[in-house]
Amino acid sequence: MTTLADPDTPFAVVDAAKVKRNIARLAAHVDGLGVPLRPHVKTIKSAEIAALIHDRGPITVSTLAEAEAFADAGYADILYAVGIDPHKLPRVAALKRRGVTLTVLLDSVEQARAVRAAGIPAVIEVDCDGHRGGVTIDDPALVEIGRILGETGVLVHAGESYFATTPDAQHKAAEHERDVAVAAAQRLRAAGVSVHTVSVGSTPTAHAATDLTGVTEVRAGNYVFFDLVMAGIGVCQLEDLALSVVVTVIGHRPEHGWIIIDGGWMALSRDLGNGRQGYGLVADLSGAVLPGLVMSAASQEHGTLTARDGVPLPDLPIGTRLRILPNHACATAAQHTGYHVVNHTSTGTTIDARWRRISGW
Amino acid sequence: MTTLADPDTPFAVVDAAKVKRNIARLAAHVDGLGVPLRPHVKTIKSAEIAALIHDRGPITVSTLAEAEAFADAGYADILYAVGIDPHKLPRVAALKRRGVTLTVLLDSVEQARAVRAAGIPAVIEVDCDGHRGGVTIDDPALVEIGRILGETGVLVHAGESYFATTPDAQHKAAEHERDVAVAAAQRLRAAGVSVHTVSVGSTPTAHAATDLTGVTEVRAGNYVFFDLVMAGIGVCQLEDLALSVVVTVIGHRPEHGWIIIDGGWMALSRDLGNGRQGYGLVADLSGAVLPGLVMSAASQEHGTLTARDGVPLPDLPIGTRLRILPNHACATAAQHTGYHVVNHTSTGTTIDARWRRISGW
Repeated sequence: MTTLADPDTPFAVVDAAKVKRNIARLAAHVDGLGVPLRPHVKTIKSAEIAALIHDRGPITVSTLAEAEAFADAGYADILYAVGIDPHKLPRVAALKRRGVTLTVLLDSVEQARAVRAAGIPAVIEVDCDGHRGGVTIDDPALVEIGRILGETGVLVHAGESYFATTPDAQHKAAEHERDVAVAAAQRLRAAGVSVHTVSVGSTPTAHAATDLTGVTEVRAGNYVFFDLVMAGIGVCQLEDLALSVVVTVIGHRPEHGWIIIDGGWMALSRDLGNGRQGYGLVADLSGAVLPGLVMSAASQEHGTLTARDGVPLPDLPIGTRLRILPNHACATAAQHTGYHVVNHTSTGTTIDARWRRISGW
Repeated sequence: MTTLADPDTPFAVVDAAKVKRNIARLAAHVDGLGVPLRPHVKTIKSAEIAALIHDRGPITVSTLAEAEAFADAGYADILYAVGIDPHKLPRVAALKRRGVTLTVLLDSVEQARAVRAAGIPAVIEVDCDGHRGGVTIDDPALVEIGRILGETGVLVHAGESYFATTPDAQHKAAEHERDVAVAAAQRLRAAGVSVHTVSVGSTPTAHAATDLTGVTEVRAGNYVFFDLVMAGIGVCQLEDLALSVVVTVIGHRPEHGWIIIDGGWMALSRDLGNGRQGYGLVADLSGAVLPGLVMSAASQEHGTLTARDGVPLPDLPIGTRLRILPNHACATAAQHTGYHVVNHTSTGTTIDARWRRISGW
């Protein structure tokens, strides 16, 4: 029996029960709204975890490497949700020849002409909040692109919802995301374009939505693991965080109030999240958070723990193992080639599997 | 013939001529000071690049995975420069049985007892600037640890030199790093401890040192690639940066002054360096910097370019390829599984090799 005391640190741990609980929560919510989920696998990058959501159902990916790996795993309905570089179309066409429908995303006339010429399905990115890419709903390019494609869909991502700190603000972001998506689809349909897909989503808006009339699918990805950013805006609780990194105490600098660990930014990433807890909070091996302790600094393979909120620095001898709860699960998971999958039972925490992550582009 | 126009983006590029020039520069400098180099391979993580420094000479590593990979490549004198977790000693012992001397680092009595019991050579980390780990020179633990080990060395790393912004400040940091190392060795010798190694180094101090009397080896790692942080403090020039990430323009948001590229933090890392140029500066495929353009924002697979300093946003159509010069080479390189190695000639830039990176722990 392998436990969290066995592998050399640092390593990434996924709590199987929390993953299943997080998956079940969103599944129940979107089922209640009558809209299917197209999970974004960019956070998990694991076919084993995706299979817990829905075996070989529709998915969203962030790289062609993910698309190809999930095609190998039997997925045949994949949305590549990063604006398409026409240079990548040969790989999309190769997937099509294998019977995999890879739908690409675009927001320009140039891209639309290229994908139309290649016979690749595409949806149009529509911007709802000035977060990143997409045409705005009143941009004449929306209809122009739609007419080039003839048959298409619209995709909206409320990226700014990650900064919506109240349930009301998240609900408003969800309403707005849906309104923009439905209005864009309506505008295209009014211009004679066939619109088969109205896709919305982000982890905050997927959980906050209460009415998805006119929407055909919901995307979310981070929710499988959740993280301190999501807990910070109340989309989840600390005990829902399913990803952590196990580290070991390797030194003490009491004169500075520091405990040194063997996990730095290589293991946690450089993501500072909402800026409130350095590189992450600290838990013991059972997953219980150690109050007042924070990973305040990181170099490549070193982390520094400090105490705050008036809590004394705990006595953690050299060799003590801890779990760091990350700011941003997508970024921390990306630093690892796989996950040690644990189950907590009455007799302890055992590592029951090792699941590989997809990497590269 | 493969060029930078061929592989799908994003991908990491190493300029072979710049790597060789950076290596030759520091080699000449430390040769002139009469002290051998023990390069830190944590930045490059590539046996092919290490071979350009000195084939199978002494090296420094940041993980046991690096130690094992370099042992496989024929390196037999390796310093593991992260405080040792006693749980990792079996892997160190396994290397010893293969004839590889892996020297570990420590700064506590507990660690010293564990490595002494395991018969593993160790050097003592001595702190010179409150940057991270290490015993201070006046700490009684220094001699206590030395006596447990009997035979040892001292290692000092002037981590704060990365924030020394003038040649004079870097020179002072180098003098101080050496003074502390030599004094620590002297203190140990005065207590009857045999000190075989006096190891100093960081990329800024290795270049700024003018007198290394009493030092037995110099460590540096970042200098092979350099980056915007090092250019920012004047240790190198922008044209010395040997690592970049090739990306493609995938969208435009003229109303925001944005150009969208297909490289985000997954390709560049979340490292914001000195905070002066977002996620990096922008160059064309020949490596020439595009003045006033900066990668100002990043999500997982998207980057945003904006103009500053009154420079108009250049006309870069969809499909245009660019090279992003990173803030922190160690962190950006870590996001990739290998390097495309390029040579610039009068007829263009060709990809002549692909070198793999070591990953994990």
